[in-house]
Amino acid sequence: MPRTLREFQDRIRTLYGSKDARRGVEGTFMWFMEEVGELSAALRGRSGGKDALALEFADVLAWLATLANIAGVDLDAAVEAKYGRGCPKCERTPCLCHEAKP
Amino acid sequence: MPRTLREFQDRIRTLYGSKDARRGVEGTFMWFMEEVGELSAALRGRSGGKDALALEFADVLAWLATLANIAGVDLDAAVEAKYGRGCPKCERTPCLCHEAKP
Repeated sequence: MPRTLREFQDRIRTLYGSKDARRGVEGTFMWFMEEVGELSAALRGRSGGKDALALEFADVLAWLATLANIAGVDLDAAVEAKYGRGCPKCERTPCLCHEAKP
Repeated sequence: MPRTLREFQDRIRTLYGSKDARRGVEGTFMWFMEEVGELSAALRGRSGGKDALALEFADVLAWLATLANIAGVDLDAAVEAKYGRGCPKCERTPCLCHEAKP
C-alpha cells in the first residue's frame, strides 16, 4: 500500500490516469464536488457509520489527487512548501497566531 | 517534513489541534469549502501561477486533514481500506471497469 503522499498520488495516476486525462479538469472537478457533498452528508451522520465516513474521506482525497495529477501538481511538494516550516503565518508549531485557521 | 499521510495528518493536529477542537465540524467544513472555492478559481487560472495553484491544493488537503482529525478518521487507513486492493469496483490496476471514476 502507498504510504507517502507521493506514492498515493502515483497510485491514483496508475489506477485512473488514462480516464482522468480524457475527462479533464472541469469534469473532474464536478466529480470531486459530488464526493465533497457525500462527505458533508456523512459528517452530519446521515449515511452509514464510522467506516462509511472514513470511505468518504478516502474518496475526496482520491479525487483531490486526481485533480492534482491533471493539473501537474505534486501534493507532497505543495504541503512541504506551505506547511513545512510550521504555521505559514506565524511559523510556530503549534500555531500561536490569530490569522491562520481561526 | 512529514511524508506519510499519517505524519501529515499528525502535523496538522500538532499545528492547529486546539483551535480545531474549539471550532468544531460545522465551522471547519465552511473553512474547507472556502479553500475548495479558492482551488476552483486557481484551476481556472484566475489567481496566480503554478506555485499559487500548488498552495491551494495544500490548503484543501490541510483542511481535509483537519476535518478528519475532528471526526476521528485516520486518512491513511481510509485510503488503504478503499484503494489498497486496486480499483474498489473491478479490483484491477489500472482500473478496467466503467463503474469507478468514468
